Amino acid sequence: MIKYILNDKLVDQNKAMIHVSDLALLRGYGIFDFFRLIGLKPLFLEDHLNRFYNSARTLRLECPLDRDTLRSMILEMIKSNKIHDSGVRIVLTGGESPNGYYIGEPTLIVLNEPIKPLPESHFTEGIRLVSHQYLRDIPDVKTLNYLMGIYHLPDIQAAGALDLLFHWNGKISELTRSNFFIVDQNDRIVTAGKGVLKGINRKHVLQLAREEFEVEERDIFMNELPAAREAFLTGTTKKVTPIVQIDDIVIGDGRPGPVTQRLQQMYDEYIEQYLKRY
Amino acid sequence: MIKYILNDKLVDQNKAMIHVSDLALLRGYGIFDFFRLIGLKPLFLEDHLNRFYNSARTLRLECPLDRDTLRSMILEMIKSNKIHDSGVRIVLTGGESPNGYYIGEPTLIVLNEPIKPLPESHFTEGIRLVSHQYLRDIPDVKTLNYLMGIYHLPDIQAAGALDLLFHWNGKISELTRSNFFIVDQNDRIVTAGKGVLKGINRKHVLQLAREEFEVEERDIFMNELPAAREAFLTGTTKKVTPIVQIDDIVIGDGRPGPVTQRLQQMYDEYIEQYLKRY
Repeated sequence: MIKYILNDKLVDQNKAMIHVSDLALLRGYGIFDFFRLIGLKPLFLEDHLNRFYNSARTLRLECPLDRDTLRSMILEMIKSNKIHDSGVRIVLTGGESPNGYYIGEPTLIVLNEPIKPLPESHFTEGIRLVSHQYLRDIPDVKTLNYLMGIYHLPDIQAAGALDLLFHWNGKISELTRSNFFIVDQNDRIVTAGKGVLKGINRKHVLQLAREEFEVEERDIFMNELPAAREAFLTGTTKKVTPIVQIDDIVIGDGRPGPVTQRLQQMYDEYIEQYLKRY
Repeated sequence: MIKYILNDKLVDQNKAMIHVSDLALLRGYGIFDFFRLIGLKPLFLEDHLNRFYNSARTLRLECPLDRDTLRSMILEMIKSNKIHDSGVRIVLTGGESPNGYYIGEPTLIVLNEPIKPLPESHFTEGIRLVSHQYLRDIPDVKTLNYLMGIYHLPDIQAAGALDLLFHWNGKISELTRSNFFIVDQNDRIVTAGKGVLKGINRKHVLQLAREEFEVEERDIFMNELPAAREAFLTGTTKKVTPIVQIDDIVIGDGRPGPVTQRLQQMYDEYIEQYLKRY
């Protein structure tokens, strides 16, 4: 039987239940983080734990487990479940509220979920996006609020797109669950430096990019897209994914560009080295 | 033992649990409605059921119970629990998602919660608000997203205020859980006509107001506040509540005004009549 973590215990997956008075359910109040396993090795676990505890602090949620205990319970869960190439989702909720609105004692839940592999064409041919005017609430925190992304799924699917690209007053922020990059007319790799959730893969890809390219963290505007040479996204399961079209704007020549392809290659090598050191 | 409704069954309160894979918990995706009982009589139940099923439709959530069955189960729950002057919260979630993001089979939960009565001074002396730049997502739907309101509770409390007043580009929308009204310089009662959640008490108070006052549904701007003669809010538990200060702007002479007081009186009489007819 697959095990999940519920507060300070490993429990059978089908017994991982929370009470309906939890503030995450009644008011959408909580945070999470998500990382993947390669085989059974967790990728960038320490980065994800950093961000998880930071998100918790910003939302005034005290995790019932300290970092060392949480880490060792997660590793125990992974070892017990043996679900290769799966995902681990750490959720911290507002807890059972005394009045349906004030924060209670947070509930910690760690799920271990299979990940359906993306088709190879996702990485070799790239994907399309639909732009949408929206500002995420508390953008630097990984909150549970994905209302807009899920609400718009039918529009996204009707456009043959993978996701939404959020922008506000012409300024592009991010996708629903990924960071956004362009290669501009001066061959610089550009991504938003503020007002976005700072992805863990964003961080590692930026670090790799700086080895071979000029990199700039600055605001990106919708009106830069027609002249952008390339665009790509980074994310935990989507790694480095080429973006070939946004609404009716074809990016570059409509195929993954050389900078994106080089970063994909560097990323794969980097992960290989990471796993060797693990 | 207090009973709640879980899908199609009445269950003991402490057994009202949902699985951690529910989309309401993992992604904040779901809707709800909330009404109060006077004694054991539900106030404006049909209005709340209308809005509940409308919210569900907009978010593509199919309620496992049809309206007649849901109504009769709620009445059965109220009769069984006998919690006088309590609140009933109907929640419909995204359900257990097949992939952590797509909508599953919605879970229906109906809670019956005690309501702590507001102090008399709340209605006789009025309350203060703190303004905050924010646009609610999908404002005409009663979604589970209360992230901003709860996140800012410490600021609200530090200011001795009751709640946030949301505005965007100078335009005032609503509070976190109430509708906002002013009495303008021409003695008109004004409230936003769009871009807000249309409260059930808003509807009934507007209807009462039209009997004796001029009423206008239009945009209200932050720069109108200094000249406003009165301000008040409407809500399920807050009924008609005078607002005497917003940030450092004192409304009128800082005390509940005659129009607000007249509406409070009309509202109380209206409820009395409603209960007689019930």
